[in-house]
Amino acid sequence: MNMNEKTVKKTNIYSGSIIKLDLHEVVLQNDRPASREIITHPGGVAVIPVSENRTVSFVKQFRKPYDTEILEIPAGKLERGEDPEACARRELKEETGLTACSIQFLTQMYPSPGYTDEVVHIYLGTGLTEGDTSRDEDEFMEVCRYTLDEALEMALSGQIRDAKTLIAVLMAKQLLG
Amino acid sequence: MNMNEKTVKKTNIYSGSIIKLDLHEVVLQNDRPASREIITHPGGVAVIPVSENRTVSFVKQFRKPYDTEILEIPAGKLERGEDPEACARRELKEETGLTACSIQFLTQMYPSPGYTDEVVHIYLGTGLTEGDTSRDEDEFMEVCRYTLDEALEMALSGQIRDAKTLIAVLMAKQLLG
Repeated sequence: MNMNEKTVKKTNIYSGSIIKLDLHEVVLQNDRPASREIITHPGGVAVIPVSENRTVSFVKQFRKPYDTEILEIPAGKLERGEDPEACARRELKEETGLTACSIQFLTQMYPSPGYTDEVVHIYLGTGLTEGDTSRDEDEFMEVCRYTLDEALEMALSGQIRDAKTLIAVLMAKQLLG
Repeated sequence: MNMNEKTVKKTNIYSGSIIKLDLHEVVLQNDRPASREIITHPGGVAVIPVSENRTVSFVKQFRKPYDTEILEIPAGKLERGEDPEACARRELKEETGLTACSIQFLTQMYPSPGYTDEVVHIYLGTGLTEGDTSRDEDEFMEVCRYTLDEALEMALSGQIRDAKTLIAVLMAKQLLG
């Protein structure tokens, strides 16, 4: 099957500091028209830092869309033209103070392919050295540490709900056993 | 730490058929102002159907934000007031023709907590019976089947990139072995 949706008209609804929203009028495979609401996002990175004794460092931060604090692995948005691995190292250091000797690529993840083009590059960070954090002055978060097995239990029991964090914990467990 | 971001002004930018976009002016914990671009989404469900011989049924469909076909587990948006488990059964039947004797809740997933309030309820469907699909006339997809071990390999090697699908495959492997 050759699937496709050709855009015949694109209208920009919003161009903000992080996201852009466009309305696409498309033609489906049956030649019928449809509309697609599409968010353009710069993409991001996330890194699961696992120490030699299998301790995983997370960050807890307030997320306005859910009006609550949630537990995530260190992550951030890509700057324009930034290398994802360099961005992962930068965000890890800024948010947790950790420097990783090894950064291993795990996967590229599509958070919600129906309406956003965001891609999250996920890494495993090992060979960790502790240092100082350097968060933006408007960035509030708390570092929380759990063993990889505790983190797996938290993923399976619904205490971890963030997509990139669930994927990183489950993949790290597959890889590290 | 008591984290919070209080909305002092909310401006609706767009209210579409699926998503809504609001701009929130908030006050941070340091009393400084900030703005948050927030998508409101009805939420969705996804179900990983695993047959008795450990075959997993996926659907491949075109996703406009990535301009390509991607492999996902059967999924759909919640109708207003709809029970997520009932929605999961409905979407599974519509998209693959399968009826699940057992639908086990796996988790609630937050796809991208920085800018969307979407929640995806993920289920494991077992005790499967085959039947006819009943897709909308504008819904184009192809059912693809792999063993759970093949699916795990595809998750670890980057052939599966959709967040809900990665999580469901990795969790099903944890649970079913």
